[in-house]
Amino acid sequence: MEYFKNVPQIKYEGPKSNNPYAFKFYNPDEIIDGKPLKEHLRFSVAYWHTFTANGTDPFGAPTMQRPWNHLSDPMDIAKARVEAAFEFFEKLDVPFFCFHDRDIAPEGENLRETNKNLDTIVAMIKDYLKTSKTKVLWGTANLFSNPRFVHGAATSCNADVFAYAAAQVKKALEITKELGGQNYVFWGGREGYETLLNTDMELELDNLARFLHMAVEYAKEIGFEGQLLIEPKPKEPTKHQYDFDAANVYAFLKKYDLDKYFKLNIEANHATLAGHDFQHELRYARINNMLGSIDANMGDMLLGWDTDQFPTDIRMTTLAMYEVIKMGGFDKGGLNFDAKVRRASFEPEDLFLGHIAGMDAFAKGFKVAYKLVKDGVFDRFIEERYKSYREGIGAEIVSGKANFKTLEEYALNNPKIENKSGKQELLESILNQYLFSE
Amino acid sequence: MEYFKNVPQIKYEGPKSNNPYAFKFYNPDEIIDGKPLKEHLRFSVAYWHTFTANGTDPFGAPTMQRPWNHLSDPMDIAKARVEAAFEFFEKLDVPFFCFHDRDIAPEGENLRETNKNLDTIVAMIKDYLKTSKTKVLWGTANLFSNPRFVHGAATSCNADVFAYAAAQVKKALEITKELGGQNYVFWGGREGYETLLNTDMELELDNLARFLHMAVEYAKEIGFEGQLLIEPKPKEPTKHQYDFDAANVYAFLKKYDLDKYFKLNIEANHATLAGHDFQHELRYARINNMLGSIDANMGDMLLGWDTDQFPTDIRMTTLAMYEVIKMGGFDKGGLNFDAKVRRASFEPEDLFLGHIAGMDAFAKGFKVAYKLVKDGVFDRFIEERYKSYREGIGAEIVSGKANFKTLEEYALNNPKIENKSGKQELLESILNQYLFSE
Amino acid sequence: MEYFKNVPQIKYEGPKSNNPYAFKFYNPDEIIDGKPLKEHLRFSVAYWHTFTANGTDPFGAPTMQRPWNHLSDPMDIAKARVEAAFEFFEKLDVPFFCFHDRDIAPEGENLRETNKNLDTIVAMIKDYLKTSKTKVLWGTANLFSNPRFVHGAATSCNADVFAYAAAQVKKALEITKELGGQNYVFWGGREGYETLLNTDMELELDNLARFLHMAVEYAKEIGFEGQLLIEPKPKEPTKHQYDFDAANVYAFLKKYDLDKYFKLNIEANHATLAGHDFQHELRYARINNMLGSIDANMGDMLLGWDTDQFPTDIRMTTLAMYEVIKMGGFDKGGLNFDAKVRRASFEPEDLFLGHIAGMDAFAKGFKVAYKLVKDGVFDRFIEERYKSYREGIGAEIVSGKANFKTLEEYALNNPKIENKSGKQELLESILNQYLFSE
Amino acid sequence: MEYFKNVPQIKYEGPKSNNPYAFKFYNPDEIIDGKPLKEHLRFSVAYWHTFTANGTDPFGAPTMQRPWNHLSDPMDIAKARVEAAFEFFEKLDVPFFCFHDRDIAPEGENLRETNKNLDTIVAMIKDYLKTSKTKVLWGTANLFSNPRFVHGAATSCNADVFAYAAAQVKKALEITKELGGQNYVFWGGREGYETLLNTDMELELDNLARFLHMAVEYAKEIGFEGQLLIEPKPKEPTKHQYDFDAANVYAFLKKYDLDKYFKLNIEANHATLAGHDFQHELRYARINNMLGSIDANMGDMLLGWDTDQFPTDIRMTTLAMYEVIKMGGFDKGGLNFDAKVRRASFEPEDLFLGHIAGMDAFAKGFKVAYKLVKDGVFDRFIEERYKSYREGIGAEIVSGKANFKTLEEYALNNPKIENKSGKQELLESILNQYLFSE
Repeated sequence: MEYFKNVPQIKYEGPKSNNPYAFKFYNPDEIIDGKPLKEHLRFSVAYWHTFTANGTDPFGAPTMQRPWNHLSDPMDIAKARVEAAFEFFEKLDVPFFCFHDRDIAPEGENLRETNKNLDTIVAMIKDYLKTSKTKVLWGTANLFSNPRFVHGAATSCNADVFAYAAAQVKKALEITKELGGQNYVFWGGREGYETLLNTDMELELDNLARFLHMAVEYAKEIGFEGQLLIEPKPKEPTKHQYDFDAANVYAFLKKYDLDKYFKLNIEANHATLAGHDFQHELRYARINNMLGSIDANMGDMLLGWDTDQFPTDIRMTTLAMYEVIKMGGFDKGGLNFDAKVRRASFEPEDLFLGHIAGMDAFAKGFKVAYKLVKDGVFDRFIEERYKSYREGIGAEIVSGKANFKTLEEYALNNPKIENKSGKQELLESILNQYLFSE
Repeated sequence: MEYFKNVPQIKYEGPKSNNPYAFKFYNPDEIIDGKPLKEHLRFSVAYWHTFTANGTDPFGAPTMQRPWNHLSDPMDIAKARVEAAFEFFEKLDVPFFCFHDRDIAPEGENLRETNKNLDTIVAMIKDYLKTSKTKVLWGTANLFSNPRFVHGAATSCNADVFAYAAAQVKKALEITKELGGQNYVFWGGREGYETLLNTDMELELDNLARFLHMAVEYAKEIGFEGQLLIEPKPKEPTKHQYDFDAANVYAFLKKYDLDKYFKLNIEANHATLAGHDFQHELRYARINNMLGSIDANMGDMLLGWDTDQFPTDIRMTTLAMYEVIKMGGFDKGGLNFDAKVRRASFEPEDLFLGHIAGMDAFAKGFKVAYKLVKDGVFDRFIEERYKSYREGIGAEIVSGKANFKTLEEYALNNPKIENKSGKQELLESILNQYLFSE
Repeated sequence: MEYFKNVPQIKYEGPKSNNPYAFKFYNPDEIIDGKPLKEHLRFSVAYWHTFTANGTDPFGAPTMQRPWNHLSDPMDIAKARVEAAFEFFEKLDVPFFCFHDRDIAPEGENLRETNKNLDTIVAMIKDYLKTSKTKVLWGTANLFSNPRFVHGAATSCNADVFAYAAAQVKKALEITKELGGQNYVFWGGREGYETLLNTDMELELDNLARFLHMAVEYAKEIGFEGQLLIEPKPKEPTKHQYDFDAANVYAFLKKYDLDKYFKLNIEANHATLAGHDFQHELRYARINNMLGSIDANMGDMLLGWDTDQFPTDIRMTTLAMYEVIKMGGFDKGGLNFDAKVRRASFEPEDLFLGHIAGMDAFAKGFKVAYKLVKDGVFDRFIEERYKSYREGIGAEIVSGKANFKTLEEYALNNPKIENKSGKQELLESILNQYLFSE
Repeated sequence: MEYFKNVPQIKYEGPKSNNPYAFKFYNPDEIIDGKPLKEHLRFSVAYWHTFTANGTDPFGAPTMQRPWNHLSDPMDIAKARVEAAFEFFEKLDVPFFCFHDRDIAPEGENLRETNKNLDTIVAMIKDYLKTSKTKVLWGTANLFSNPRFVHGAATSCNADVFAYAAAQVKKALEITKELGGQNYVFWGGREGYETLLNTDMELELDNLARFLHMAVEYAKEIGFEGQLLIEPKPKEPTKHQYDFDAANVYAFLKKYDLDKYFKLNIEANHATLAGHDFQHELRYARINNMLGSIDANMGDMLLGWDTDQFPTDIRMTTLAMYEVIKMGGFDKGGLNFDAKVRRASFEPEDLFLGHIAGMDAFAKGFKVAYKLVKDGVFDRFIEERYKSYREGIGAEIVSGKANFKTLEEYALNNPKIENKSGKQELLESILNQYLFSE
């Protein structure tokens, strides 16, 4: 059956098109820097938001009209979703998708049965993958929805829960490998605390490190060659999540000798919830060689929760892609739309419209960023701005020859320091020129 | 003397220009809807940020390099600033400026001397105005810098301070009239509280109302025909400012029978500090017939203080101008750049670059907004969305014929309610098309 | 059957008690100012958080262990909850409870059936009320959970939804009257917007006013003598709620001539989400004669959503009760615990522990506040601080005799203004003395 | 001369005292756990807020009435401040103070003259220290006020500024050693960025590391044995400070092999600006052996800037001291009041009242925390809560014997996981009992 009958194959029609089911800025096959745009952007659909989510929120019941809403058996629903998903991927012409174990298959009575459900659906997906152009960007395990994770998973106060989480990640690694996933993501859904009054933070963090070391070991054992990723988030669902932001995760990985095994999956909305611009988190990850992949979405800057909106702010997507291009482009990572249509956008077609909005925004952003990099717009300014470190006293500082005594000597005999304007307003103007006149 | 020797006359050169001292999107004389763009936008320079501010911040000393920095006598400085200001206005080709009494002239030993200083400078400005194309958009009184206002001005616990503030506003109204100001603004700099423990909020608000009634009365007495404006701000410098946001000011004006005399001066950064989008505050003011003028700037959404940045977010300027156009355009109000160059943008030229950035951003925003309105993009969607209120039970609700009993009757016999998607993602896509493809 | 077998009757045992099921600060029968503490505080249990909520959050499934979890028929569950509720009220010795229509009875296939369900449960509750010491503080209608309200209720773009909401409030007013409710609350669950791009804010607000006028009229018609209350909240579930804060609601009521019919139900967590201290909202409501009732809870100041925690910050409860005492105490209102046990506090006993925590916190707060008022601690300071308005020029200002000209005359001849320190640190110290040494 | 004539020697008079110039909870000589309270708390006065600050804010001029306001020569003022400071220390009976180089002595025409000014004042302070009971807790260098630091100090784009900063820290280390300072603090005043558009973040962070390595080396060279401390702050004055929070600094120190030389100076207000509870930052630092010292103040949770209020929230001080006690108490660190009287608390006496407020709040907090630790209130709960990690599968996890395969085996055969309530409400109640009934 066709699940999205009203939606045609999505194609590029250019910015003047009136067809809502067309890309306006994203031409997948446009060649830039020697390869098609789709290979630069590596877009991915998030299975959970697109096929599993139903529109509930803390104050309301499901709203989403989905072609499988008439079904009642959880496995029937799961199968219908797989069918719909591959139709969706094809119509959207999207190269990747991502999933949690529990998005694709329902839990059973016990872990054995749950794994059996998972095997059934994984076999079905594997079959689809044989002929589909769409691949798995990454897999992950949902260690947060089930009430057993109420106090955390790897950081639970209950060792039985730690064990269960380990079993679940073991299986998730296996199926991600089986489905050819290029990465595996750890998002610490309930790894954090509600109150320090009842929390042994030290033991919990030690346990989290133990858990990740076991994961590294097991991935090696089964020959999983995807990149392991940690996704920072500062809060929600817990009051304070352990993987607060990129720097916090980096500190954790360094402390526990895990930094050589993991990179980061940076999400825009998590960045801003942590008090950072999206670009900041990407930059921080990039200069520390930790930028692996991106969860492409957008938050509402006036709201304090993870709204996971489709990213439509093209200034933001431009600055994000700027960092990706400066890194040399994605290796195994990509742009996963960890984004959901608004609860009021409940028609099936809105799933396409949301993704088109996001893909167009990132495509436009990429193209502007590429031109900014190619023209050296900011690079030349920065080169000039920091040139004092490439000569004289600056070169001595950088090379390690200077010390406090030589620097004092220099400073005492350097009568007048001249600074130059940082020219922020001019640079923002130029960015606008690139954004609005190409 | 020429104060800004390195800066040529600013002209429109189009979006591809490499000349930093050129408008890229703002062509002042471009005719839109029958009148030149400059008459739609009514740009204004804020005297205080541009000529008086010196770059201090809570952690640092002045940085601004200004052509009058070699002077030491306050009145000499004041005069040099006037000269420089009119050179600046002319080079920027800007139709308006705004000022506080204390920006343009220094305080003296006592109020009499202060007024004398003011008279001297006002006479000088008046002279310039005779030949300048630039006019006064609004004047106001600085009732916050001097330590006498430490506990407020009209809401001070000290009646002597109330009296002083009254004298100061009296004079400010007079000079605003004398200089042909089209509006007079009340921003409650220190009208708020630091702690409720020592505050009689009721008396303070009553006194604020008394003060404004006196102002209305005096404006009438001297025949000042400009629009009186109140500028909301939620916090800073006080912990809680009385004029928190547009709705709060509207409540205040209604309570004290002041609503027929005042409109609002809405500032972007104050809106976001209060937890509202800039467009929200403009919309709220507009539908209550209270939108008078705009303080055009931009905050950093991750910072909790008033950064007063030059507005360069064109999505924001577009949605702001959308509200202005829907209101029918400005009457006496305008777009006053209550914006300051960053502390690190300390060269005199940055003053031009900042204004160019802002003017271009609002010009581009206006043009996109104008097309959105002309094409009825959102209007048609909204007309369709709310059409149920123009017929049947909806029409009865709007006309006042329905009541709870007739509505219950209707609801009991209306078996199925059908809602339609709100299509937020599609609308955001279309907005991007208008922004990035015109 | 006994639902909470492990929990004894809760009694006052004083601050040194080790019994978790005892009040430490709340002695219901302690006489203060001529009446027992319980009559000052008028505590109320929120039916929804305590008997209906199941511990779901945006990332997780139900966790709550409840004695009715084994039941499956919605009406059986509803009945069990009523039985459990009255056992709970009795054991806790709480004088009031509050409810939404949909908390107490499940929706049926259509409105008629839903109303029938409601009638059944209302009859059952009415029966309990005959012998219980616990009464209804207020009732309300849930106009947010059902997907029909996805675009709002009274502010929906769909007139059918407006009609349905009207029918629902009509019924809710009737049952609140039938159950002797002392107030009726309007909380605009989905009355707000997600994006201005698709929103006719003016029509929506006009419709909200129409709806409330119909409610006033109908309440009059059926002889409901309870107080009508509006509960402000700035955001969540919508991006922007129309009843943003106390001032915003006051503006709305004034504009639409509704202010004589409504008072406010102020919630602590909603206050802080709007950028105000809880005390600020109470003070603002109080001085405008709008303070009706209180939703007693507490937010986490670092989180941007409504956490609805049990209030345990005694400094906060003290300052809240200070405002209530200065108002002359509650008339029809009370302290309703719109608070939920944390998702990790899932044992039935936690429901008691949470309420005990909150009741103790407010009892202690009330006692400290009472002493602060009785001793005139802040009053005397304030009287002295504002004394200049009771004599000379200040008295002329207050009486309306002064104007800008007389005040200028005064200011010109008043050589030196002397201000006094606001003494915030001292006042905070004294507050701590009262808090920690009684 | 006596600078604070109206203020007597501050003594402990107990919680019922009406004397504003008396400690209510802080009895310096009370013996707890074998040593006097003052040795547990190690209070320190911040020279800058108390003797240098003048009450300016971004909207206003100085308000502070100080006994040296009549002086005009900067060195005369500096000397008067030293005299006043030691009178203040003695009257307050405070064991420590902290300073920046530029607080104690004014800058001269050039670095040589500046150093000379500093030497003069340092000699004067050294003289006072011979007989005073008050010592230096820590010294630091002001690398943010002078306009030369407009783009940063160690992270400036200008190598001359790096050199100047090095010379300044060299001197500051020398004088801190000379004055017997027990620590030296690095607060990265302007080490951050305003916009990424003009920033080479990688070079700037590398340079910061180079700078700190030079400092370590020089401290070793001169035999300075104090603890080196870094003070995290997320923003202000820059848009984004590099030392964002404790975890971020820890990551930085680890990356650049600096972690063995530095500990952290945690400030309450900086913690909350970064989105963390004060206790969180202390806990994080403690479990990573990085907790060195504390900047004791308090922010306003509704304001987005560093208000640096005197800490009067005793729940907060209790939880802070809880972490200090669990660490085994301060070694070289202490509680430095990085707090300023409000701008409206401008009388000299307010300086005493502010410190008394803070000292009482921390003394009370310490005593409650001490009892909580001694009674094992939270420890026993936590021990029970995590006991599954001390036996069976949990012990195998902790000891490193378990792996994903053994854990899966366990989980598959562990039919039912039982979690216990986290009991947050009960623990908060108990905390209130300890706070309000001792």
